[in-house]
Amino acid sequence: RINAERLLRRLDELGQIGALEGGGNCRLAFSDEDKAGRDIVLGWMRAAGLDIRIDRFGNVTATRPGREDGPPVMAGSHTDTVATGGKYDGNLGVLAGLEAIETLNDAGIETRRPVAVTLFSNEEGARFSPDMMGSLVYQGGLPLEEAYGIEGIDGSTVGENLERIGYIGDAPVGGNEVHAFVELHIEQGPILEDEGRTIGAVEGVQGISWTEYTFTGRSAHAGTTPMSRRCDAGYVAAEVAAYVRRLAAETGNGHVSTVGVFEVEPDLVNVVPQKAKITADLRNFDNELLKQAEQKLEAFVDDIAGREGAAVARRTLARFDPTPFDTGMVDRIHGIAERLGYSTRRIASGAGHDAQIMARICPTAMIFVPSVDGISHNIQEYTKPEDCEAGANVMLHTLLELAE
Amino acid sequence: RINAERLLRRLDELGQIGALEGGGNCRLAFSDEDKAGRDIVLGWMRAAGLDIRIDRFGNVTATRPGREDGPPVMAGSHTDTVATGGKYDGNLGVLAGLEAIETLNDAGIETRRPVAVTLFSNEEGARFSPDMMGSLVYQGGLPLEEAYGIEGIDGSTVGENLERIGYIGDAPVGGNEVHAFVELHIEQGPILEDEGRTIGAVEGVQGISWTEYTFTGRSAHAGTTPMSRRCDAGYVAAEVAAYVRRLAAETGNGHVSTVGVFEVEPDLVNVVPQKAKITADLRNFDNELLKQAEQKLEAFVDDIAGREGAAVARRTLARFDPTPFDTGMVDRIHGIAERLGYSTRRIASGAGHDAQIMARICPTAMIFVPSVDGISHNIQEYTKPEDCEAGANVMLHTLLELAE
Ligand SMILES: NC(=O)NCCC(=O)O
Ligand SMILES: NC(=O)NCCC(=O)O
Repeated sequence: RINAERLLRRLDELGQIGALEGGGNCRLAFSDEDKAGRDIVLGWMRAAGLDIRIDRFGNVTATRPGREDGPPVMAGSHTDTVATGGKYDGNLGVLAGLEAIETLNDAGIETRRPVAVTLFSNEEGARFSPDMMGSLVYQGGLPLEEAYGIEGIDGSTVGENLERIGYIGDAPVGGNEVHAFVELHIEQGPILEDEGRTIGAVEGVQGISWTEYTFTGRSAHAGTTPMSRRCDAGYVAAEVAAYVRRLAAETGNGHVSTVGVFEVEPDLVNVVPQKAKITADLRNFDNELLKQAEQKLEAFVDDIAGREGAAVARRTLARFDPTPFDTGMVDRIHGIAERLGYSTRRIASGAGHDAQIMARICPTAMIFVPSVDGISHNIQEYTKPEDCEAGANVMLHTLLELAE
Repeated sequence: RINAERLLRRLDELGQIGALEGGGNCRLAFSDEDKAGRDIVLGWMRAAGLDIRIDRFGNVTATRPGREDGPPVMAGSHTDTVATGGKYDGNLGVLAGLEAIETLNDAGIETRRPVAVTLFSNEEGARFSPDMMGSLVYQGGLPLEEAYGIEGIDGSTVGENLERIGYIGDAPVGGNEVHAFVELHIEQGPILEDEGRTIGAVEGVQGISWTEYTFTGRSAHAGTTPMSRRCDAGYVAAEVAAYVRRLAAETGNGHVSTVGVFEVEPDLVNVVPQKAKITADLRNFDNELLKQAEQKLEAFVDDIAGREGAAVARRTLARFDPTPFDTGMVDRIHGIAERLGYSTRRIASGAGHDAQIMARICPTAMIFVPSVDGISHNIQEYTKPEDCEAGANVMLHTLLELAE
């Protein structure tokens, strides 16, 4: 069993970095707060006597050697947050991985395989798209130089920020060999809580499609410009945003779609907007339905912009196919959770996770614990201490079984 | 006849202050650029030997004495702009008033009544609402202390900015006596150009209703939050913005309505917006229709916010009834324009103007000149030199007749 007191204390300490009034955290990727959060975790990793490896993209892996060399059994997640995030999203997975390893240390248990925990850079994608950027670069799915050049919401690049916070390490990216990967994460949705279960054995992650649309119309006087002469970029964006909502019901299969970004220029009461920028986040567990939704949205955008005479620029910010996890791994997690006496179910993930990228290179699955009220990406995000502890115990035994 | 070369040169010089790349101006009220624009105009007023009076709200009146004392015949307008404005909106009226007075100087003409030109503070209302703020305070319709306390889009107050730019003068506000008021302005719409007319004798200004809505929902994860559990402030705002467009067609009578401001928080791709702020600008020449539109919008807002479970906060930013101008003044302007050989029509104003406030205290009317393509509040705003000249000549003769 893990040391719950230590795990919860660290969660609290990490949650004090970039703390927001009223609760929650702002540690956007590659910010000063992100650096401070990494620094404190790195300190704990070093204090646990682990081998630290920082790669060219700032992904930090801390390894406890096994009796044999070879690919490690790995836990991992992220410590960056959205602008108004909670203290569990990502952090719990990293700290529970570390906690499991320290529990092995404390108990003096030797394993055949090395056991590692990785803190991946920029999982959230809130400041720099795509999300899961660190694991993507780690896995080799996104070339390092391309990732360095990505511009964020404030116009600066990933590379200059990584350099500024001093997290460009020596280890190469890509070509990593991992025996198996397990990520503990809060569910961020309401299902486990609704059903009164403690552990979710995650079967897969839904597909994610992020597109940014920039509409260009013509700024004009709000009082003197007849409606028939308008080319209102803000209006086009509003119709698209309303359509994105309708698209969820039209698509079905639990489809979710969201317009999270909405900006207009010049953003003044008596000026018809000349420019509008919005993002559409579409998700579905069925890739065909996701593609259909994407196509319908494209058609709607072209139609409404065309009727208003506005120009459209589109940019794909992220596109991930639905990812099924390794069934052997899912079964294993389900079995361990039951054996430990936790009420358990198989579940699907609505959020993107580093695990879905790691699934490209090794057998992978995830452990979910309940989110109170299903709330996440919100400063009120909360998971009960006993549930954090339960998840970390399932993590410990999963790592132990895999590492033999 | 006025000195067109001098008028156009000054328009150009003033247009260089706060100039934007690609043309146009940004001289938001009480900004450093606004101050610089005022300074240059004040210099010309002083050089013309006029009596300068700056009131507690920064309204600047330059007076040429008449044979008799008593209320002046006044021209006037503003020199502040929206964030992406043109160089004619407001500026032409101030500089044409000054030009008319200097023409009287050059020709050595004495008038019975004093002739004055006033530069009113913050007509645009783009940074601080309501619009026509300077003339409102001048007229006594808005108490000075209340106006000082108004917060702008950047959170600072009118009072602190007026102080910063050094335009709090000694003259009291309110209780001003004016014999008659004439404002020359660009039409900012397409009617004169469409009909090939040079001069519009403005019969009145439509009613203006500005409301700011702030919706509060619940920030949530875009991937894990089922559609049924969302309280999406951005979605509510988008539906309202789309409705504001439909409202124009539903209301009729040339109704225009615009959502110029649209902001969401936290404004991130994978976070359901927690907050959204929009403005609605509704205008109609018929106050009953305007009230109906306001009521329908209120009902729509309550309905859609209620269905989403979002809270609504509303703030009236401006509300002006439709204002008819003095028919004797309108006839006079129409007659003078015809006598001077300009193709003329009676016309209504879609934009708000200081003249509609001055109409509360003295016989008032306006002179319009064409806007190319009807474009205004846009850096491409343009009025032909010969039209500026024509408007200033009508202004000169109107002032002359009124001042005897
Ligand atoms: N787990 C998580 O919040 N990931 C961020 C990427 C996403 O939007 O799903
Ligand atoms: N003339 C003008 O642009 N006034 C600004 C106020 C308005 O929006 O009508």
